[in-house]
Amino acid sequence: MSRPGLGRRALAEALGTGLLVSAVVGSGAMATRLSPGEAGLQLLANSIATAFALAVLILIFGPVSGAHFNPVVSLADWWLGRRDRAGLSARELGGYLVAQLVGAVAGCVVANLMFDLPAVALSSTRRGGAPLWLGEVVATGGLVLLVFALARAGRASVTPAAVGAYIGAAYWFTSSTSFANPAVTVGRVFTDSFAGIAPASVPGFVVAQLIGLVVGVGVLVVLYPDAGRAADAVVDAKAPAAPVRAAGA
Amino acid sequence: MSRPGLGRRALAEALGTGLLVSAVVGSGAMATRLSPGEAGLQLLANSIATAFALAVLILIFGPVSGAHFNPVVSLADWWLGRRDRAGLSARELGGYLVAQLVGAVAGCVVANLMFDLPAVALSSTRRGGAPLWLGEVVATGGLVLLVFALARAGRASVTPAAVGAYIGAAYWFTSSTSFANPAVTVGRVFTDSFAGIAPASVPGFVVAQLIGLVVGVGVLVVLYPDAGRAADAVVDAKAPAAPVRAAGA
Amino acid sequence: MSRPGLGRRALAEALGTGLLVSAVVGSGAMATRLSPGEAGLQLLANSIATAFALAVLILIFGPVSGAHFNPVVSLADWWLGRRDRAGLSARELGGYLVAQLVGAVAGCVVANLMFDLPAVALSSTRRGGAPLWLGEVVATGGLVLLVFALARAGRASVTPAAVGAYIGAAYWFTSSTSFANPAVTVGRVFTDSFAGIAPASVPGFVVAQLIGLVVGVGVLVVLYPDAGRAADAVVDAKAPAAPVRAAGA
Amino acid sequence: MSRPGLGRRALAEALGTGLLVSAVVGSGAMATRLSPGEAGLQLLANSIATAFALAVLILIFGPVSGAHFNPVVSLADWWLGRRDRAGLSARELGGYLVAQLVGAVAGCVVANLMFDLPAVALSSTRRGGAPLWLGEVVATGGLVLLVFALARAGRASVTPAAVGAYIGAAYWFTSSTSFANPAVTVGRVFTDSFAGIAPASVPGFVVAQLIGLVVGVGVLVVLYPDAGRAADAVVDAKAPAAPVRAAGA
Repeated sequence: MSRPGLGRRALAEALGTGLLVSAVVGSGAMATRLSPGEAGLQLLANSIATAFALAVLILIFGPVSGAHFNPVVSLADWWLGRRDRAGLSARELGGYLVAQLVGAVAGCVVANLMFDLPAVALSSTRRGGAPLWLGEVVATGGLVLLVFALARAGRASVTPAAVGAYIGAAYWFTSSTSFANPAVTVGRVFTDSFAGIAPASVPGFVVAQLIGLVVGVGVLVVLYPDAGRAADAVVDAKAPAAPVRAAGA
Repeated sequence: MSRPGLGRRALAEALGTGLLVSAVVGSGAMATRLSPGEAGLQLLANSIATAFALAVLILIFGPVSGAHFNPVVSLADWWLGRRDRAGLSARELGGYLVAQLVGAVAGCVVANLMFDLPAVALSSTRRGGAPLWLGEVVATGGLVLLVFALARAGRASVTPAAVGAYIGAAYWFTSSTSFANPAVTVGRVFTDSFAGIAPASVPGFVVAQLIGLVVGVGVLVVLYPDAGRAADAVVDAKAPAAPVRAAGA
Repeated sequence: MSRPGLGRRALAEALGTGLLVSAVVGSGAMATRLSPGEAGLQLLANSIATAFALAVLILIFGPVSGAHFNPVVSLADWWLGRRDRAGLSARELGGYLVAQLVGAVAGCVVANLMFDLPAVALSSTRRGGAPLWLGEVVATGGLVLLVFALARAGRASVTPAAVGAYIGAAYWFTSSTSFANPAVTVGRVFTDSFAGIAPASVPGFVVAQLIGLVVGVGVLVVLYPDAGRAADAVVDAKAPAAPVRAAGA
Repeated sequence: MSRPGLGRRALAEALGTGLLVSAVVGSGAMATRLSPGEAGLQLLANSIATAFALAVLILIFGPVSGAHFNPVVSLADWWLGRRDRAGLSARELGGYLVAQLVGAVAGCVVANLMFDLPAVALSSTRRGGAPLWLGEVVATGGLVLLVFALARAGRASVTPAAVGAYIGAAYWFTSSTSFANPAVTVGRVFTDSFAGIAPASVPGFVVAQLIGLVVGVGVLVVLYPDAGRAADAVVDAKAPAAPVRAAGA
């Protein structure tokens, strides 16, 4: 069985990341419009909508590209798969990152247009400080650990629901509301609404996310030292009947 | 194994579409009654109830008719299956569309009666404008892409939960609250409550949904060019152990 | 493989129905205590907690007794299985009904005690009238159709999640908040809190539920005329790998 | 296939229990910050976030350690497995309990830091009295019954979602908000925020949880008298294709 070409996979990454940002920004705009002044209710709607949308998007695009939608996941895939050439190549990694960034910005514009906001506006919402950066480290580390632990345990078929549930929870249990994704972070710059982030706040978030990547990969290789052939199946929804492998076997 | 006859399948489409409209209109009426003035809380209850109900209805009726409940899905099934006669025939398509429309209106009447509203009333809720129509294009395109991507990837067993989650999310991330279904749109004309839509607003919504159909099918055939034998299994819940096919194999 | 004896199965039905009533009454008491005056938020918490609890209880007790927890389901099982002796026998049916009723009342008492309410108190909440009774017919008919459609389609492994989701949705889309269960209805008489129902309102609800039973069975045998060997597997969670049968094959 | 060593399993228990406490405490802090004075909305967010997080954490750490995260579960595993040496040994039990306690406290500190609260503070929230202790008995008994019933019925693959849903519901239907876990109870001492518990209230809760353990195990051995080889697979997410065993066979 052959893999889809890089062009088709990059298109899937762009569309998936774009629709993810549309879901995050759009549901945030709807929530603030319907429940002005009720921040808790806004985040509740935003988190449930994001969890459901993310699970569905991984189902749609997983069989094509692996449904990374996230430079941190693509970087980890490339990093963990270097030795046995099971992950993304450097060239593929580049294609994925560009597609994710372009898609994220486009998805933000689509959300703005759907909600009759300026097509492009820079967010004025400052986010940062040590507690929030720690939140991003935890959120991103947990995400990386989840995605690759499922792959190494041969359970990639539950990845769509699990990643959705994880982000839905992390919106609440991290102080940063769990961006956990550099491409989505950049995309969310271009809306001055609930889900936005000011340009000046992006570098701090991205650095924290990269630290989270290192932490997540570190924990992963301690808990699941054996990659085996599962390394190739990251967030890939196409393997419901994957053979079960015992950890450490 | 033989297929159920068209009469039985049309009955399933009518009942399923009807109960879907009952769930949408009924939960909207309950939410406005219990939380007057709190639009965000109303939509939260309405979206969760719809997501749960839709998943369950696909489980109930999927093995009989494929659980389309939606002219856009039936049209796509007919369109995508013409070449190899795997989808609905033109005659079957006609039966499905009539059943969906009749069921949708009846389901609205049942909801009105359950909530002690006039059995039939025309909605006075105007919905429209470019941002909302864009919302319908996105919502419908995503729905078509989801349903047929799962079928082509051999994962139709997760369709019930995935479609429910998708609509639950799209209520929030599209400005139109994601009608995404011409039959349901028509059914919702006949209640002057939370979920209603004024007759004059229907054409704009339906046109946007048809554009969404074209967009969704276009993306589908680029990402999943190979239909294979899965073409016949659209939203069919009866295949939990379907063989896994690699995309593009 | 032998079936558990009737004593053990009746114990499972009593415990399961009891814990279900504890979940319904307890979450209602918690919701009114935490959100006084906010009826919508109360029902939202009550419905989500009930949906989650019901799914879990079916998982726990399904392999022992089939997890009916509901006289309507047991009656339908007996009725549908008479011809080929696949369902409950009359003696078993009697044991199930008694266990469900006793369990329901005991579960209500436990909830009262957990929330520091009088151990036994008659509810003063009147519920009735044609719209609500219609709600009970729809709710109960849908439940029966769901449970037996899944059994006949060979998909009993998803019954726990599906029944939980169904009731969670039906709390909202029926005007009666979907009791749909004579034993639970009786149990809820014995608390004067959110989830209670006045004794005088019970007969109307139970009659409506029995009409719903007839409607649900009627639709079932039209849509799924072939019971086959699945008839025995009603709401039984022990068959994740059940052979898939085409409807009408 | 060999089991991971005790060191690696203890690390998994510490990390998993820690992240669970981070999720509980963190989402509670976020909820009170965003919805001050709205206790019902706070618990709704807290319960949904906990349910999602717990399911995900069991998926991540289950294949390594069995994802107990809870001394009550580890004790039951040791107790039920003594005869045929299928459960934890006494030495392993000790390692698990220490890891869970250390992890729980560390997780609370991380949550405090993420939300800019004092790294360590003793809670001033008193919790106790007979109704709440009864709540803990019910919550813990139900949890033990759920976990081991799924193991004995050969359905450990649904344990992650089921345990998450159970705790999400039990937050609402028990008056104690279902701590149901001595390690998490101790961890929650060290934050003076929504999820905290005063040190003086810990003994009562832990005693009630241990009574719940006995009740849960008692009901289990009556309903599922045959442990068989499933005894070893407690909350272990690595067995999606486990052979199905009939109860009582």
